[in-house]
Amino acid sequence: MSKRILVLGGNGFIGAHLVEALSASGHRVRVFDRAGSLKDEPLKDVDYRYAKFEDAASLAEALIDVDIVVHLISTTVPGTSNLDPVGDIEGNLINTVKLLQQMRNIGVSRLVYLSSGGTVYGNTTQIPIPENHSKQPLSSYGVVKVAIENYISMFSTLHGLDALVIRASNPYGPRQGHLGVQGVIPTFFQRIIAGDTIQVWGDGSNIRDYIYISDLISFIVKSFNCKLTSGVYNVGSGEGTSLMEILSLVSEVADVPVNVEHLPPRAFDVKNVVLDISKARKAMDWQPTISLKEGCERYWHWAKGVGVF
Amino acid sequence: MSKRILVLGGNGFIGAHLVEALSASGHRVRVFDRAGSLKDEPLKDVDYRYAKFEDAASLAEALIDVDIVVHLISTTVPGTSNLDPVGDIEGNLINTVKLLQQMRNIGVSRLVYLSSGGTVYGNTTQIPIPENHSKQPLSSYGVVKVAIENYISMFSTLHGLDALVIRASNPYGPRQGHLGVQGVIPTFFQRIIAGDTIQVWGDGSNIRDYIYISDLISFIVKSFNCKLTSGVYNVGSGEGTSLMEILSLVSEVADVPVNVEHLPPRAFDVKNVVLDISKARKAMDWQPTISLKEGCERYWHWAKGVGVF
Repeated sequence: MSKRILVLGGNGFIGAHLVEALSASGHRVRVFDRAGSLKDEPLKDVDYRYAKFEDAASLAEALIDVDIVVHLISTTVPGTSNLDPVGDIEGNLINTVKLLQQMRNIGVSRLVYLSSGGTVYGNTTQIPIPENHSKQPLSSYGVVKVAIENYISMFSTLHGLDALVIRASNPYGPRQGHLGVQGVIPTFFQRIIAGDTIQVWGDGSNIRDYIYISDLISFIVKSFNCKLTSGVYNVGSGEGTSLMEILSLVSEVADVPVNVEHLPPRAFDVKNVVLDISKARKAMDWQPTISLKEGCERYWHWAKGVGVF
Repeated sequence: MSKRILVLGGNGFIGAHLVEALSASGHRVRVFDRAGSLKDEPLKDVDYRYAKFEDAASLAEALIDVDIVVHLISTTVPGTSNLDPVGDIEGNLINTVKLLQQMRNIGVSRLVYLSSGGTVYGNTTQIPIPENHSKQPLSSYGVVKVAIENYISMFSTLHGLDALVIRASNPYGPRQGHLGVQGVIPTFFQRIIAGDTIQVWGDGSNIRDYIYISDLISFIVKSFNCKLTSGVYNVGSGEGTSLMEILSLVSEVADVPVNVEHLPPRAFDVKNVVLDISKARKAMDWQPTISLKEGCERYWHWAKGVGVF
């Protein structure tokens, strides 16, 4: 059944893929983002609204006649959030609490929120990490995500908010930024092609869970169709890959050799994150389908095609 | 050994008891509070500084030449924090993060932070509640306390902050406010004496852990003397008492009958909070010594003596 869906951050990397998929499957989509996309033409059937997240009046207007809000906005990234935690709190936590209050006032009760499987748990005692693992984030980004999750849980208990919280691992794929802050895979491709030495914090043994963008999108889209799933879900590949393995895969796919320079490790980098995704698999009959190798090949094919480097 | 201790919120209920105890045991104490006490004369050897928590320059000045910061400031209380969560975040979370940054810049590495055993856990699956229980707060007050704890933990891991976090249950005793927002025991005494009907949200079966103020203070003071304990500790009586039991105890101690009116229960009131205090007992050879009955009698004796009602 067609839904009216507001995508906050709909012109970002994840948002653009989601909006495309939702629009293609017949939903009525509105995008709220600070600006138009530099890369994509606007989609014909999508209603675009351009304003800042803190612009309460524009946000309220965008919430009118909406069934579901998908909140993908983040004003910070994990690697730099510790440089300005107060800005992180103001830009993300406060604005999201205001969003929850506005949704309640306007009567929009369904929220899909993109949290972070890579940062909320901190250094873990258990691999793969189930959703009920303790949370000791090492970055402001992760602390703020936990606080937002707690406000969402509170609004659910007290005010009937119906929320799906997605703790995504590291999504990667076409459209992702390649300038070093957003995704390690596009960044590595870009640097290898440019002939740059690749700088790695630490020995490169840190393990992460990478999910191809279409697998993350399929989880979100499924959540609109099945009887609505609420609660908190890890969404990743469920598999761990070290940074050095990523590097050698990227080098193989691009068929270019790689020069690595190791820098001192960073204290806020968690050692090992692999998500236990069994809850998501069971609840939605969903599973990741694109292997890391295939995902890298698809990304590379796309990047060459659009001449992104 | 004498320490230089800055008590943020040193003129409040808990702060005044702590400052008295610290000063009496030979520490050099500085108080930072928004205003002087209306009830107590300033202590001779204490250095009082009056400014708002958000006044960064005054706070920085107060941090000079300090060994330990005890942070007792809260600009909100659990019962009303949900009316203005953004104000709660701004007043408590942001100002505390700024405090952590200032401590780091100035080089003060020891912090004692008063968190909340009554609100951080939310509705619990286990009684008594150990420190590693999951945290699902039902009030903004609790969400903010968890976020502050997470920033403290992050600053400890990344920047060498040495922090003791105290998840206190419900402290009560002399000097506590009796006007309905701060403590239920003084409030009940005051209303019984005034002949008011006592309004109880729900059936009064909600169970809480009450700790007499001197038992909480003795834990904090001990932490300065033993080899310094870091980490998170529940500090309560370890015993649960229902609201109706409190009422009948207050009625017995004051020797005045009580009229109760039951109001509808509030969704953000947790059903049952009893703290597991075994970690605090073991780590510091500490234990609560004042029974609830004796604590109520002491409070009543004090209240009559100073003519507080």
